[in-house]
Amino acid sequence: MKNIDTTAIRYQDGKLWVLDQQQLPKEQIWVESKTPEDMCHIIQALKVRGAPLIGVAAALALAHLAEQGASIADIKVASKLLRNARPTAVNLMCCVDRVMSALDKNQSNTSIVSEIALQILEEDIQLCQKMATHGTPLIQSGEGVLTYCNSGSLATAGVGTALGVIKEAYRLGKQIHVYPCETRPLLQGARLSAWELKQAKVPHTLICDNMAGYLMAQGKIQKIFVGADRIAANGDFANKIGTYTVAVLAKHHNIPFYVVAPYTTVDLQCDSGKNIVVEQRAAEEVRGASGSFGSVDWSPKDVATYNPSFDVTPSHLVTGFVLDAGLLQHPNINKVEFSKLINQ
Amino acid sequence: MKNIDTTAIRYQDGKLWVLDQQQLPKEQIWVESKTPEDMCHIIQALKVRGAPLIGVAAALALAHLAEQGASIADIKVASKLLRNARPTAVNLMCCVDRVMSALDKNQSNTSIVSEIALQILEEDIQLCQKMATHGTPLIQSGEGVLTYCNSGSLATAGVGTALGVIKEAYRLGKQIHVYPCETRPLLQGARLSAWELKQAKVPHTLICDNMAGYLMAQGKIQKIFVGADRIAANGDFANKIGTYTVAVLAKHHNIPFYVVAPYTTVDLQCDSGKNIVVEQRAAEEVRGASGSFGSVDWSPKDVATYNPSFDVTPSHLVTGFVLDAGLLQHPNINKVEFSKLINQ
Repeated sequence: MKNIDTTAIRYQDGKLWVLDQQQLPKEQIWVESKTPEDMCHIIQALKVRGAPLIGVAAALALAHLAEQGASIADIKVASKLLRNARPTAVNLMCCVDRVMSALDKNQSNTSIVSEIALQILEEDIQLCQKMATHGTPLIQSGEGVLTYCNSGSLATAGVGTALGVIKEAYRLGKQIHVYPCETRPLLQGARLSAWELKQAKVPHTLICDNMAGYLMAQGKIQKIFVGADRIAANGDFANKIGTYTVAVLAKHHNIPFYVVAPYTTVDLQCDSGKNIVVEQRAAEEVRGASGSFGSVDWSPKDVATYNPSFDVTPSHLVTGFVLDAGLLQHPNINKVEFSKLINQ
Repeated sequence: MKNIDTTAIRYQDGKLWVLDQQQLPKEQIWVESKTPEDMCHIIQALKVRGAPLIGVAAALALAHLAEQGASIADIKVASKLLRNARPTAVNLMCCVDRVMSALDKNQSNTSIVSEIALQILEEDIQLCQKMATHGTPLIQSGEGVLTYCNSGSLATAGVGTALGVIKEAYRLGKQIHVYPCETRPLLQGARLSAWELKQAKVPHTLICDNMAGYLMAQGKIQKIFVGADRIAANGDFANKIGTYTVAVLAKHHNIPFYVVAPYTTVDLQCDSGKNIVVEQRAAEEVRGASGSFGSVDWSPKDVATYNPSFDVTPSHLVTGFVLDAGLLQHPNINKVEFSKLINQ
């Protein structure tokens, strides 16, 4: 298989490497995945994260195994292991199934595994590029751009979704200033987006989530770009907790608010945001902060907390969806128009 | 001087004690202030905080000195020391000046120092009680109440301002549930308000600041109470960074938003929020979290940050001001009506 070099995953001279995101931004440590078991542990330890990137990583782990001359039986065992590494990541299952389905049809040739894995990787890179193509014209030189959580090269094999659009706009020469929100409680903005922006040399200023409103009131934000975990057919969407607050603030200040996502994020079976179930996470996350940077707990012991992993933003607060197939704006944010775009 | 027993300061059998707020909520450690120098260090180390409480603490330190038989010359030296313990706390200067002015008029009698210090303490307690009297009727049983930062018994000698109203409503038998926002970056909500609510046995759930909007969207918040650092004559007001975002969210969800403060917080010389200068604080605060709970730094080294200590909320987002003299609501939120109330 040819060499691969993305921000968060590498395949070089027969060796597969993953950037340990748990160590970011303090250290850039590449961990080798020698076996599918290794990759399972890497995925479970959140060293690789972001739904698209997890799918790519699993496919590459199978390709790596096939490259080493493994039997079809061995690849099948490994595929089951990887498919179950994380229970809720749909991309992971889709990517593994796609590889195995191709192998089923080409029993005589395990090289199909690498072929499909590379296809998955290339597609992800291209989806990101297409979103960037539709999104960058929305950003003008001189603008302040706010983003939330991490939706960049650490979550995809390509340039990213929302953060991808922003980084590409800068690469195209637009003089912008980016404000990543820290994104409590897990701090993906402070840890990962700030790191990515630094790597890409995009001018940026880190803020606490509660500072977004005041920045907007002072006229420092002209555009907002966020990612999405799931988009319902009516345009309601789920994303990291706190996104809804940013959307309300954007509406109040008349700042365009864009959601950037590939077609795979649009769930036409889901009629509206009311059908999206929001997972509650552990109280410890809110009581303090924990990671490779250390662990602190600043709240009264056992204090009750509310800790939804994401929130749901209604369609009417969205200016537009930047999809790989194009930009969807009101009054076209509805099931029919989503269908047309994602089935192109 | 008679014994004093408040949440954060005590005078017992000739000894003066301060609850070390830097150790909260992990430990309740009372530190003794044996001399005015001790109290200066205590104030500078933020072991006692909250503008009204700092003023009371300084006055009591002078009273304590006078009780020990100090000369007028000694008391004067101590007053200068205490007055300069923190440069921007107006209450501190006002309280020290009030004690010293009374001493000037009663040169023969240093017992006036204790008399005035007790007056300052009692007045602060009464102001809190008056605000609570005007504020508690605004809260109904069954309501969810959101608050921000800490404006309770750890910031005043009495029950507090915004948090005082909330705690009093519960004490009066109103079955409420309180949501304190953690208040990044210094976490006064998570550390201090959560502790106070626990002490007062008021049902509460701690949230990250970015969760406030989603809670409101789900109909869990019926009232919002916040404190103020400075209120301009037109009703614009400054308070801890993040207050403005909460106010915008309240407006969007049609949730009544009240500001609770004593008359001393209203600055009639300040025409509007445009004249309030917002102090920027150290970048380290945003890059991580630090306190008696430990110190962590989760962001890229040297990342640029934005860290205003407070923000300014325009008058039109305020439902009403709960002052010690009464409730002021639109269309009465203006200089003339503020003057009437604060000069009663």
